[in-house]
Amino acid sequence: MAGLDQAVAAVAAAVEVELASILPEAEGPQARLHEAMRYVVLGGGKRLRAFLVAATAEMFSVRGLAPTRAGAAVELLHAYSLVHDDLPAMDDALLRRGKPACHVAFGEATAILAGDALQPLAFEVLARPDYGADAEQRCQLVRGLAASTGSLGMCGGQLLDLMAEKQGWGLEAIAAMQRLKTGALIRWSCEAGTVLGRAGTPEAAAVLDYADDLGLAYQIRDDLLDRGGAGIATGKDSGRDRTVGKATLVDLLGEAEAGRRLLELRDRAVRRLDIFGDRATLLIDLFSLVISRKS
Amino acid sequence: MAGLDQAVAAVAAAVEVELASILPEAEGPQARLHEAMRYVVLGGGKRLRAFLVAATAEMFSVRGLAPTRAGAAVELLHAYSLVHDDLPAMDDALLRRGKPACHVAFGEATAILAGDALQPLAFEVLARPDYGADAEQRCQLVRGLAASTGSLGMCGGQLLDLMAEKQGWGLEAIAAMQRLKTGALIRWSCEAGTVLGRAGTPEAAAVLDYADDLGLAYQIRDDLLDRGGAGIATGKDSGRDRTVGKATLVDLLGEAEAGRRLLELRDRAVRRLDIFGDRATLLIDLFSLVISRKS
Repeated sequence: MAGLDQAVAAVAAAVEVELASILPEAEGPQARLHEAMRYVVLGGGKRLRAFLVAATAEMFSVRGLAPTRAGAAVELLHAYSLVHDDLPAMDDALLRRGKPACHVAFGEATAILAGDALQPLAFEVLARPDYGADAEQRCQLVRGLAASTGSLGMCGGQLLDLMAEKQGWGLEAIAAMQRLKTGALIRWSCEAGTVLGRAGTPEAAAVLDYADDLGLAYQIRDDLLDRGGAGIATGKDSGRDRTVGKATLVDLLGEAEAGRRLLELRDRAVRRLDIFGDRATLLIDLFSLVISRKS
Repeated sequence: MAGLDQAVAAVAAAVEVELASILPEAEGPQARLHEAMRYVVLGGGKRLRAFLVAATAEMFSVRGLAPTRAGAAVELLHAYSLVHDDLPAMDDALLRRGKPACHVAFGEATAILAGDALQPLAFEVLARPDYGADAEQRCQLVRGLAASTGSLGMCGGQLLDLMAEKQGWGLEAIAAMQRLKTGALIRWSCEAGTVLGRAGTPEAAAVLDYADDLGLAYQIRDDLLDRGGAGIATGKDSGRDRTVGKATLVDLLGEAEAGRRLLELRDRAVRRLDIFGDRATLLIDLFSLVISRKS
């Protein structure tokens, strides 16, 4: 999958440039806040969500800055969510992407505010008229991204995840929580590509079904890595999810069954994208990458 | 100002209905998160910001649901900001609007998440196509509201306010901090009315200058109330801003000079709205109400 690796690296580089230009410079009276925002957004991560926007948009022959802009917006939101998830009152994590978590490096108040300020920035840049999406598309992107991060999306999932520490949950409940917590932003990333590409209803539905399977597979792989990984490999506190009694899909399925589930999900995702023929190669290769990733 | 009182009450009632319908019901797996969101948004506050949207929009003869919707959006953001400002790592306040602060009533993690989830809801409802603003207007509202709440607006102001606890600041620096912390949302509320009313450049500029004066006057009055008030009157921890050494405008001006400044600001605001003639009556009466309010 050399083509995929190159494509992922190219998107990550373009999104990094866009993010660096979107984020305010670390200067002026609020320099410390801007420094914290740049610290948590720049120079890290695989930019999976931005890549999903780009790969989906490419499938619909979208050209220009729009996929990069939408990718930057979802990465801003993803970064904010990590900052707040790591807070002492939430997951209380000390490491993120191999660096001290934001609240460790900048203090708790600044970390809360950095997350709070990254969130509107994502919506602000989506609403700007300068990136080749018309006003209706921009509104659709804002609405979709907002819905996927709110109480019926990511924030709702995080609340359920915190609750899951305290009670024994079944497979369905955990999968539903993960669909919100990590699945919603992954789904929106693919949705953004369909909005920019003005996809028809069956095409958009196929892509969103693919996104849902990918989100679930991503989470199962994450759980598997957490069981075996060292802090160095994933760049975050390892094993913490298990030690504090958080229910994971892999706990309930067992590792062998979880591995089988990953392959089933990939096969189903491939079938969902049949209608696109060769144009779906990047998204299909990406699925294989996600279920075999080592970090 | 019986006309003003009636108008304020009518807007507050309409916005309350809109907010109750926008907020998810407290049911389903995330019931507790939704309950917290409703707890902090509904049934409280004077809805000053929503009234500013409505009064400005009325000056430009805007009809229909649009001012109520935009007013609800800014009240959602205002509510989120209070929840996060009250957190232990921030102002550590126990009371808000006469009730236990959100983190006291629901715990810190849920309070962080409730604030996090209120924020995108504001942008989501602004981007919806169902309230009589066209797509360009909706994008403009989203952009403006996002900019006014981010690191160059409200969040930046809150960071500066936290810093101000630690160092002796002058009048200009404190005024600049307040322009961001409380002024930015007040300014956007008036801006929303001009966007919905498709105001010309001089009219919009006059309204925004009025809004800046109002924001400053609001803060000076707030500081005066904090010096003299009891917890019961303002519904929040009284005197805390002073006891923890926060610099306020009134500390530097003195109470008598602060009172004179309020009257000067009102006179200037009245002159700014001259071009609107009688149509500006509500906004002018509101200024008088803000500088004489008792809570």
